[in-house]
Amino acid sequence: MTDLANYVDTVACNARKAATDLTTATGEQKLRWLKRCAATLVSRADEIVAENAKDLTAGEDKGLSVAMLDRLRLTPERLQSLADAVIEIGQLPDPVGEIMDSTMRPNGLLITKVRVPLGVVFFIYESRPNVTVDAAALCVKSGNAVILRGGSEAFHSNAILYSVIKDGLKAEGLPEYAVQLVNTTDRAAVGEFLKRGDQIDVTIPRGGRSLIERVANEATMPVIKHFDGICHVYFDASADQKMATDIIINSKCHRPGVCNAAETLLLHKDVVQGFWPAVAAELQSQGVELRCCPVSAAGINGAKPVTDEDYATEYLDLILSVRVVDDVAEAVQHIRKYGSGHTESIVTEHLPTANFFQTQVDSSAVMINASTRFNDGGVFGLGAEIGISTDRFHARGPCGLREIMSYKYVVHGSGQIR
Amino acid sequence: MTDLANYVDTVACNARKAATDLTTATGEQKLRWLKRCAATLVSRADEIVAENAKDLTAGEDKGLSVAMLDRLRLTPERLQSLADAVIEIGQLPDPVGEIMDSTMRPNGLLITKVRVPLGVVFFIYESRPNVTVDAAALCVKSGNAVILRGGSEAFHSNAILYSVIKDGLKAEGLPEYAVQLVNTTDRAAVGEFLKRGDQIDVTIPRGGRSLIERVANEATMPVIKHFDGICHVYFDASADQKMATDIIINSKCHRPGVCNAAETLLLHKDVVQGFWPAVAAELQSQGVELRCCPVSAAGINGAKPVTDEDYATEYLDLILSVRVVDDVAEAVQHIRKYGSGHTESIVTEHLPTANFFQTQVDSSAVMINASTRFNDGGVFGLGAEIGISTDRFHARGPCGLREIMSYKYVVHGSGQIR
Repeated sequence: MTDLANYVDTVACNARKAATDLTTATGEQKLRWLKRCAATLVSRADEIVAENAKDLTAGEDKGLSVAMLDRLRLTPERLQSLADAVIEIGQLPDPVGEIMDSTMRPNGLLITKVRVPLGVVFFIYESRPNVTVDAAALCVKSGNAVILRGGSEAFHSNAILYSVIKDGLKAEGLPEYAVQLVNTTDRAAVGEFLKRGDQIDVTIPRGGRSLIERVANEATMPVIKHFDGICHVYFDASADQKMATDIIINSKCHRPGVCNAAETLLLHKDVVQGFWPAVAAELQSQGVELRCCPVSAAGINGAKPVTDEDYATEYLDLILSVRVVDDVAEAVQHIRKYGSGHTESIVTEHLPTANFFQTQVDSSAVMINASTRFNDGGVFGLGAEIGISTDRFHARGPCGLREIMSYKYVVHGSGQIR
Repeated sequence: MTDLANYVDTVACNARKAATDLTTATGEQKLRWLKRCAATLVSRADEIVAENAKDLTAGEDKGLSVAMLDRLRLTPERLQSLADAVIEIGQLPDPVGEIMDSTMRPNGLLITKVRVPLGVVFFIYESRPNVTVDAAALCVKSGNAVILRGGSEAFHSNAILYSVIKDGLKAEGLPEYAVQLVNTTDRAAVGEFLKRGDQIDVTIPRGGRSLIERVANEATMPVIKHFDGICHVYFDASADQKMATDIIINSKCHRPGVCNAAETLLLHKDVVQGFWPAVAAELQSQGVELRCCPVSAAGINGAKPVTDEDYATEYLDLILSVRVVDDVAEAVQHIRKYGSGHTESIVTEHLPTANFFQTQVDSSAVMINASTRFNDGGVFGLGAEIGISTDRFHARGPCGLREIMSYKYVVHGSGQIR
């Protein structure tokens, strides 16, 4: 074995052992650990900010964009928010051992379905160093050991945040290797970890499409993937004008750079000549570039023609594709053809139309008269999220504690045989 | 593309289309289809038995074992049982659209988690032709389209059973391609299907280890795997003697050839000199060969020495490994080292010991004072099963309707924005 393979093997074995040891950790112990981490993030803020400054300087030298540098930056305020988030995770009900379902059988057997950790999580992420703490908190709270592989641009920030986590684990008597940070930025290390399907139960890559595709191709264990969010708002003939306008503006403009922002507006043909021009003007006043089909372009100053490629594009920017459809069925056809199964919203007052849309649209979230922006772990009451899954297998949509867990059946008998 | 690739592509596309069309099928329609299939299985029994006879003759010529031929055989009685099973599946509550969970948020958004089909299932199975009907019933009931790949030894039987299914789909106005039977026994066809990760949502192989390993290695979509069942019974010092004896005998002898039969008995050291000899005699009187550690072998006539390899073997036969342990902790250690995560049972009257065992043993089913033989979809109230998963991801243990389904969030609002 190469040195790298040896290193990866040691980390994976330590994680597996820690996952087993975590089965005896109590909820109280985990909560004390999270509280300790939160307190240390605040008390050691100066040190953390100083280490973060090294990454920021290196990032400037490497020519990272202003947006990237901002994502990388830690401030005392941001550390306080991070500490608050950690406390919030601590206060969620402990999901380990929760009885999800139970059946009493005629022969007196009580069948219980009990939530248990998946085991070992390999988590790959980029730039934002606060994710290091969030991911560690979510994984250990759910009884999983985690191997963290952060981005090289956050090397110093991740290292000091990891020391906070690790010192806390020791101080509270939790398994030392419950959280491990990969200490090499060698890209080949990821490949080595992906071979360890016997020791790692799931890999979660959070980053661009090329990273996720590479991981999905190489992994020998299940992967929770997060691909594009090409989200649609369908503006039905029966929609309330004010509500539709608010939802379209919010879905597109609230945070255009995130995955649950809308990229395409589908307009029922009856609303085009009615209030579409007013909505278009409002979108344009917010700086949105409109790329319109011929019918929706009519009479809209500055509208550009939309292409098939546009319909299949996640702009992540203040650009909106606009297409007129005959009815909800055509809207659904469009979404099936171009959507990515992330989030779609319908604005309608007509109940059968809403029902048709919600049963026919197969996306992780279908919003009826609400902004696409609500597809989020916090909003859905999951507490926090380690990612959003665009898969259909195991976890779909926002992934909080439960989505990185499995279950087992515990059967209580009194001597039953078959 | 080769002819085979073209064929596979057509089948996969037809299945994808059928899965979409199934979203409008009602529960009533599916129930009528199942009732029609059940009636036809009985009314066409003579024809089906005649086709089955061709497979049996070919199987005899190929030198299939008596057990294999028995698994392959269809009789009017077996067809009646199969028809009954189909009716039972039909009578289960329709799982499509079921609300699994819901949260009312402070802003008035009602978040519902709705059960939806996975989409397209590729199911690979061997010998028993009744599985053709069971799998079709479970998949369509759960809103999935299914591509069935049966074993070549059941070629004629599967073909006529498939015609019953297909005629029924047409008669009830359900999508014709909701169930498709792969019409070639070319082994390369499986490899082609496994490349279609974009059109097939899950592959379920049911067969020997080599088949499952091949599928897991080649598949570009998730796979629900069923590996060995190396199941243990731990006989604690506090166990009731009669109960322990019954459970051990039942776990080993009721059906030694199935995956949830016990392969290893772990004896607390205090019971060895007590009632172990009587239990051993009872096991031997049922024809069980005992392979014992030195301590458990003492005084047992005919006991053979057990090896490490025995501990790791799924005998599927009337053979039992026996090992003496100091306590429940050592029993758990043994299970962690040699077990396959399938089913383990403890016999004890001591509550803390039972609790330790159930939290520390990580298997799909943990039985407390009950036979290992109860790890079964029917017993667990799932209605029927398409397989038993030894995975931890997505589905674990018996897989019925729900285990081949996904979910989506449907959010009901009244104009909410962020």
